[in-house]
Amino acid sequence: MKLQIAIDLCNTEELLELVSNVKDVVDIVEVGTPIIMLEGQLGIIKLREKYPNMVILDDTKIVDGGKLEAGYACAAGADIVTVLACADDITIKDVIEETHKHHRKTMVDLINVADVVSRAKEIDEMGADYICVHTASDVQKTGKNPLDELKKIKSVVTNAKLACAGGINLKTIASIVELEPEIVIIGSGITMAEDPKAMAALYQSYIKGGQ
Amino acid sequence: MKLQIAIDLCNTEELLELVSNVKDVVDIVEVGTPIIMLEGQLGIIKLREKYPNMVILDDTKIVDGGKLEAGYACAAGADIVTVLACADDITIKDVIEETHKHHRKTMVDLINVADVVSRAKEIDEMGADYICVHTASDVQKTGKNPLDELKKIKSVVTNAKLACAGGINLKTIASIVELEPEIVIIGSGITMAEDPKAMAALYQSYIKGGQ
Repeated sequence: MKLQIAIDLCNTEELLELVSNVKDVVDIVEVGTPIIMLEGQLGIIKLREKYPNMVILDDTKIVDGGKLEAGYACAAGADIVTVLACADDITIKDVIEETHKHHRKTMVDLINVADVVSRAKEIDEMGADYICVHTASDVQKTGKNPLDELKKIKSVVTNAKLACAGGINLKTIASIVELEPEIVIIGSGITMAEDPKAMAALYQSYIKGGQ
Repeated sequence: MKLQIAIDLCNTEELLELVSNVKDVVDIVEVGTPIIMLEGQLGIIKLREKYPNMVILDDTKIVDGGKLEAGYACAAGADIVTVLACADDITIKDVIEETHKHHRKTMVDLINVADVVSRAKEIDEMGADYICVHTASDVQKTGKNPLDELKKIKSVVTNAKLACAGGINLKTIASIVELEPEIVIIGSGITMAEDPKAMAALYQSYIKGGQ
């Protein structure tokens, strides 16, 4: 199991500062969609320049133009590129093909998919590297969390590795870890903590302890 | 009816050059998702600085973090912000609320929605300004075009204005114009033409001729 920190609520400069603080206690650094919305691939480029061996996820949430947009992410230096499960199959396959051409990986994000089981099966057959259950941040206020969806898709996904995101906190981490997804993604639970590095280390104690 | 040029396949510098060429013959300039993916809001900021009165659409394709991301687009100077119809209702409503707070508008993009009629009805009730039928560029190679979906939703949408995008060309423009969407969106049909300004003027002759 790996810990991925999702960094969303800042610009590229603040991203670099936060990463220099937490880099030794997380396994994967996610440059979140809002940072891309603000400054494009700049965060990925800067992180890659500074940390040649860091595993970086570029949360592009591609929904069309699969080859083009995955190509931009690969050129910037991303290791993992995200595409929405609600995109057309053609787009998802194009993202997988483009990332694999560059020896990178694709994560397909099940955010807002109604029937996660059927869609996860289909995506698994397409050759995605990771399938991520994800409760949207806007939806977390309704009390929903990704645990149930992770349980549901665990038995039907046979090739891809699983990831889990969306409001995971210290109350829910143990139940998530029990299901052994390959990647546990935590955002504001770490980034908004008073001491993000110590908090990341605390989450790691659950994650690495569970292995 | 209005003509919106969708500019996708370039960086911000090339965007500015193309806009300076076509600005007098189009009604709305769309900064496409790939440009945002590359350089964030820079294209919007630069266009707004140069053209205070231009109507600019920021094709953010928001799927989560509605208030935050719509806020970024409004701050950059966008007049119209896009959100995916496949986003949760909470996200769509948040984008509408945020854009209206800044006296801007929201376009909801029906890209890859299976049941466009039901979803268009729901979105219409949420208070979206525009609802856009949109055949993904990756899907256009299958021969699909947005005409049928435009026909289907025309009778059920009563508040929002309609927009239509996805591979519209000189063969299909007349049938689209007959259905009188408020906005006709043309991308590579103009941007890849030998003379984009002349081509935009040709499309305008269909659009303005149809009024």
